[in-house]
Amino acid sequence: MLKNKKPTILVTNDDGIRSNGIKLLTEIALQYGNVIVVAPSKVQSAKSHSITQAKTITCTKIPNTPNYEAYACSGTPVDCVKIAIQELSQQPVDLVLSGINHGINSSVSVIYSGTMAAAIEATMNGIPAIGFSVNNYNHKLEFPEITPFIKQVIEEAINQDLSPDISLNVNFPNPATCTTKGLKVCRPANGRWEEKFVDANDPYGRKSYWLDGTFIDFEPDSQDTDEHAMREGYASVVPVRPQFTQAPDIEIIKKWNL
Amino acid sequence: MLKNKKPTILVTNDDGIRSNGIKLLTEIALQYGNVIVVAPSKVQSAKSHSITQAKTITCTKIPNTPNYEAYACSGTPVDCVKIAIQELSQQPVDLVLSGINHGINSSVSVIYSGTMAAAIEATMNGIPAIGFSVNNYNHKLEFPEITPFIKQVIEEAINQDLSPDISLNVNFPNPATCTTKGLKVCRPANGRWEEKFVDANDPYGRKSYWLDGTFIDFEPDSQDTDEHAMREGYASVVPVRPQFTQAPDIEIIKKWNL
Repeated sequence: MLKNKKPTILVTNDDGIRSNGIKLLTEIALQYGNVIVVAPSKVQSAKSHSITQAKTITCTKIPNTPNYEAYACSGTPVDCVKIAIQELSQQPVDLVLSGINHGINSSVSVIYSGTMAAAIEATMNGIPAIGFSVNNYNHKLEFPEITPFIKQVIEEAINQDLSPDISLNVNFPNPATCTTKGLKVCRPANGRWEEKFVDANDPYGRKSYWLDGTFIDFEPDSQDTDEHAMREGYASVVPVRPQFTQAPDIEIIKKWNL
Repeated sequence: MLKNKKPTILVTNDDGIRSNGIKLLTEIALQYGNVIVVAPSKVQSAKSHSITQAKTITCTKIPNTPNYEAYACSGTPVDCVKIAIQELSQQPVDLVLSGINHGINSSVSVIYSGTMAAAIEATMNGIPAIGFSVNNYNHKLEFPEITPFIKQVIEEAINQDLSPDISLNVNFPNPATCTTKGLKVCRPANGRWEEKFVDANDPYGRKSYWLDGTFIDFEPDSQDTDEHAMREGYASVVPVRPQFTQAPDIEIIKKWNL
């Protein structure tokens, strides 16, 4: 239950504890509850739901944060959530806020995203969560102008008692080129990343690739998708649930000769 | 379409190209189609759907594999699938087989698994896929006795034209202690990993954690779950679809004041 209490809020991200995005999100979170920040010590973008196995994870307390506790963690965003809720937070965590990510996590990108993996891991532990991302990859960019929309989402999550089974994936159009007009609840667009591998041999004669890609929206004419909302200047709000199996698919496979 | 052709089969895993599991799966795959193996050069367990960004990925051709091409790849399992289908395979890939994983990927473990991430990445590219895992973490173990069941799943996937939207998550009970009785199509059990962090300070005084955990089945009395099937000595077959958003959740959030 989020409503009618001062919540304990865990703030995390995948860009690392020094990013501008997490600084802004921490400032906003402090207006709503007691805050603990546990975030990667370095960039952990595109780490998805990976966890650190068979080696130690270190957590270093950040000094001089009088209004909250903060830890830089050597692990992945999901490691951060696990350690924060089980080890570092003095109080049970009521809400996890992840981001603000420098880079977009709409449509299928949710599956690659460390930002959203942290939010999804929270729901897997019964804690409601919200991930925030902006469609700009410049880590030096600041974007205070989206603050009112982030506050509106957090306030509604508290007022409406966001279910611990759901996380919200909130994506903002590029703050450097677009003034956000408002929030739109959407479904994720069907699409995929079309990779371009820059193909070269390394100095040792091994075939070597750089991953680079372009997102292809399979349904550019649909009006109800997150991609459409952002193209129209709105921030998209998409509910996410870590449910990988659909009942009708089970019935299809049950008819096989297995 | 898988039926009525000799398929091109990509074999991959997350335990690395030298593991016993991928050797057995490659031998089996050769009985059904033209095979290309692209797998991580080292262990990539629990890497989930992570991809390698901002550094090069190298792929080294393995010599002396006269019946198929094989490449050891420095990247993650998902990198392997992307590079294999777009760069390395001479023919369009018709089917992706992932595993056989040394370790279980049932229930919620699907989200952490590199084995299943490779299969899911295939479906995101319109290619049907099957992931195989065994409930034993000893990388020296061999398990030829499960071969007939793996063949049965592959043959049915071909005969029934497994949808490119679905991957199958097949998990075997521990081959070292249990003779598999058969295959059961199931839903994934509700549960979660309860982590035990072994908590210590490192030599530099930083708080340090080892991740270790136990899986908790939230519904041990349910008869239709993958966990139940394995406890009864059956291999579980669970269809998986990378669909993170459910329509009813969108309707709930649409009622909010956003």
